[in-house]
Amino acid sequence: MARPVISLLTDFGLRDPSAAICHGVILGIAPNAQVIDISHEVRKFAIRDGALLLWSALPYLPVGTHVAVVDPGVGTSRRPIAVRVARGDTLIGPDNGLLLPAAERLGGAEEARLLENERFRLATVSLSFHGRDIFAPAAAHLAAGVRFAELGGIVPLDQLVQLTIGQARVTAGGLESAIVYIDTFGNVKLAGTLQDLESALGTVEPGEPLQVEIGGPHGRSRATEHPVFASTFGDVPVGQPLLYEDSYGRLCLADNQGDLAARLELTEDQAITIRRPA
Amino acid sequence: MARPVISLLTDFGLRDPSAAICHGVILGIAPNAQVIDISHEVRKFAIRDGALLLWSALPYLPVGTHVAVVDPGVGTSRRPIAVRVARGDTLIGPDNGLLLPAAERLGGAEEARLLENERFRLATVSLSFHGRDIFAPAAAHLAAGVRFAELGGIVPLDQLVQLTIGQARVTAGGLESAIVYIDTFGNVKLAGTLQDLESALGTVEPGEPLQVEIGGPHGRSRATEHPVFASTFGDVPVGQPLLYEDSYGRLCLADNQGDLAARLELTEDQAITIRRPA
Amino acid sequence: MARPVISLLTDFGLRDPSAAICHGVILGIAPNAQVIDISHEVRKFAIRDGALLLWSALPYLPVGTHVAVVDPGVGTSRRPIAVRVARGDTLIGPDNGLLLPAAERLGGAEEARLLENERFRLATVSLSFHGRDIFAPAAAHLAAGVRFAELGGIVPLDQLVQLTIGQARVTAGGLESAIVYIDTFGNVKLAGTLQDLESALGTVEPGEPLQVEIGGPHGRSRATEHPVFASTFGDVPVGQPLLYEDSYGRLCLADNQGDLAARLELTEDQAITIRRPA
Repeated sequence: MARPVISLLTDFGLRDPSAAICHGVILGIAPNAQVIDISHEVRKFAIRDGALLLWSALPYLPVGTHVAVVDPGVGTSRRPIAVRVARGDTLIGPDNGLLLPAAERLGGAEEARLLENERFRLATVSLSFHGRDIFAPAAAHLAAGVRFAELGGIVPLDQLVQLTIGQARVTAGGLESAIVYIDTFGNVKLAGTLQDLESALGTVEPGEPLQVEIGGPHGRSRATEHPVFASTFGDVPVGQPLLYEDSYGRLCLADNQGDLAARLELTEDQAITIRRPA
Repeated sequence: MARPVISLLTDFGLRDPSAAICHGVILGIAPNAQVIDISHEVRKFAIRDGALLLWSALPYLPVGTHVAVVDPGVGTSRRPIAVRVARGDTLIGPDNGLLLPAAERLGGAEEARLLENERFRLATVSLSFHGRDIFAPAAAHLAAGVRFAELGGIVPLDQLVQLTIGQARVTAGGLESAIVYIDTFGNVKLAGTLQDLESALGTVEPGEPLQVEIGGPHGRSRATEHPVFASTFGDVPVGQPLLYEDSYGRLCLADNQGDLAARLELTEDQAITIRRPA
Repeated sequence: MARPVISLLTDFGLRDPSAAICHGVILGIAPNAQVIDISHEVRKFAIRDGALLLWSALPYLPVGTHVAVVDPGVGTSRRPIAVRVARGDTLIGPDNGLLLPAAERLGGAEEARLLENERFRLATVSLSFHGRDIFAPAAAHLAAGVRFAELGGIVPLDQLVQLTIGQARVTAGGLESAIVYIDTFGNVKLAGTLQDLESALGTVEPGEPLQVEIGGPHGRSRATEHPVFASTFGDVPVGQPLLYEDSYGRLCLADNQGDLAARLELTEDQAITIRRPA
C-alpha cells in the first residue's frame, strides 16, 4: 500500500534544523509518511515566491497533504488553516495567500478549516515556530487518518486572504508584464502566458526577434533587450537571450547557458514590456 | 511496523556527494532505515554550531540513531564513539564534544563505546572520511539489530571531551551573555534563558524596552541597540529589533522581517550585555 | 523486501522546486521507491563536475537506477539515454558524457537504450525540463518493473558522447596535473592518483615536503606552494597546506581547517605541477 505523502515548502533554510524538526514531528505521529521537501530555500518572507513554487510543484506530486510555511506573521492573529481542494489534497499553512494559487491549480478550494483543535498540535505551542508546533502535526494527523473536519471550525472561503501571482496586460504597445520569480539559473519568470503574448502581438514563431523593455523607477525604461522567441535554450547561441514558454506554461526570459538576471541586475516586480522590434 | 530512524548532521555541504554517500552506505546495510537529514550545512569545522543544532533538533525526532560529523580531527587520534542516552537513542560521531549537549537534553549519557569493531566499519577505512567508513556503517548496523555493546569497548563517560554551548552570567550591570549561533534569518541566539534574564533584571513584560551592549575587541562596547522585549516578531514594527524567548527556550535578538546579524555585522562569540535602559 | 533505489544528481538547485518535482513524478509511478538525492547543487551546466560527483558517489549506493541531469542541450537533438552497467545499475540522463565515468566505475557499460518509448514519459514533454518529463519517469518505470529493453532502441556504446575527468602526465619535471573539482571545503581535487605521483617522483612518504606550481595563463606559473605530503588534515598545523590521497583515491590539495581554493583563488582546469622541492 502506498505511504501517505506529505510535502513541505518553507523559507526556513537548510542550514538550520527547522525543516528536519518538521520531518521528525511528522514521523513521530505518522511513521509511515513519505515526506517530500519541495523547497526550504524560499526567499525569506517572500509569500508570493512560495505561492509560485507551490503552484509549480503540486500538480506533479501525488495527492497528499502539503505544508507550506512562509509566515512573517507567525504568532500574531493571522490564522493557521487547512484547505481541502478538488483533487483531494489538503494544503496547510498560514492564511496569508500562500496556499491559494496552488489550491486553484488543483481544481479549486472546497473547504477551509481553522487549525484550532489542540489534540492535533504539539503539547506546547510557541509563538515563533508554528511549522513545528501546529502545521506539521496537523499534516501528520491527517496522514495518520484524522478526518479533515476534526481539525477545527470552517473558515468561509471568501474570507481567506487572497494573493495573485501576477497578470499580464495586453496594450497597444505590446504585452505589459512583470518579473514574478527569478530561478537559480537566473532565468526570469514573467507574468503571463504564450496566449497572452499572442493576444498582444499576433502569432509568434520560433526564431522571431522580439524587443523587451525593462522598467526602472518611475515607469521609465531602464534597459532594452532583444531576445529571440525560441522553443528551448539551445536554439540560440551560448550567451544569447531568448524568450520562451517555460515548462509550466509561463513566459520566461533567459540567456542560453548564462545567468540573465545577474547580467542585467534584475529583481522581482520590475516591469517588463514585450513588443515587436521597431 | 515503524522503520528505524537514523538522522544525519554534518558540515559536508549539499553540493558535494558526501551526505548522499552516507545515505547510500546506510541503505546498503539497513534497507529499511528512515533517514532524516538534520543539516549538512553546518559551518565548516564549527563543533559548537553542530552541537547546538543537534541539541535543538533531537528532542523533536523519534527515538533512533543520530550520526553527527563535524570533525576537524578526522584521521588523527581523536576517538570515534557511540553514546547511549536515557531516552533510548544512540548518538554517533567523533569524541570532540559535538554529541554531549544533545545527550544531556535527551536525559543524559548512560554509556559510551569506542567504534572499534571492524565488522561494523566499511572494509576499507580512509583517513579523511569517517562519516562514510565508520559512523554511517555503525548507525546502520545498530538500526539493523546489532547490540550497542558489540560496537567496541566502553569509554568512561568522564573521559569524553566536554563542550558547553555557553552560559549567561547575572551581574550588577545586567545579564552578560554572548552570541552562540546566528540562524539563516539573521536571528541571533544568545547564551541564557528568560529565567536568566529575569534573575538579572526582575520580571520583564512584553513591550518593555531593553538596552543591549554589543561587545567589540578588548571588552569595549561596539554598538548599542534598543530592542523591545516581545513574544514574537510581529509584535514590533517591520524592521525593528526585539528580544524574545525563542521556540527552544533561548534568548534571541532579531529584527522583525529583517536580518539583524547582517545589519549589525555580528559574528559568533561577541559579548552581549542586556540591561534596562538608563 | 528492499525498496528499489533511485538516485538523483542535477544542477537544478535546491531553492527551485525542480528536484522535488522529480521526486513527485517518481513516487506517482513507483510509490515504493527509495529516492536518494546525490546533489542538486552541481555547478550550473558543469557536465564534468556532475560526472565526477556521480563517479564518487555511485560505488557507495545500493544497486539501483541513477538519474543525472546536467543538460545544457535540453530540448535540442542530444539524445536522452539509459545505460545498463555491469554491477546491475541503470544510469539515466542526457547523452553528453555525464554518465560514462560512473558507468566505467561500476564495471563498465553493457548496453545503452534511447529513451523514446512514449509510454514511459509524461503525457506532455516540454522542451526545457526533461528531468521531469523523460528521465524521472523512465527511472520510476524501471523501478516499478519495466524491462530495460522496453525503453527504446539500442544506442551502440561506441556512439555515446565521451568524457574523461582528467589525467595526470608523468614528465621529467614532475607530475603534470590539473584541478578537476573544488569541493565545499575548498579542497582541490586533482587529476591523477598516488600511483601517478610515485611514477613521477618515486616513493613519497608522509611528512615529505613537496613543491606545487599553479599554472596561470599562457602556461606561466602563477604561484608556488609548499605542501607537505600527509595522510590526513590533522597531520599538518592548522592553516598549513597538505597534499594527500583523498578517500576516493585521488590526489588532493588542502589547507588543514582552511579553504585553500579561496586562499589561492583557484578555479577548475588550472594546471598543477607537483615536484620535489629544489
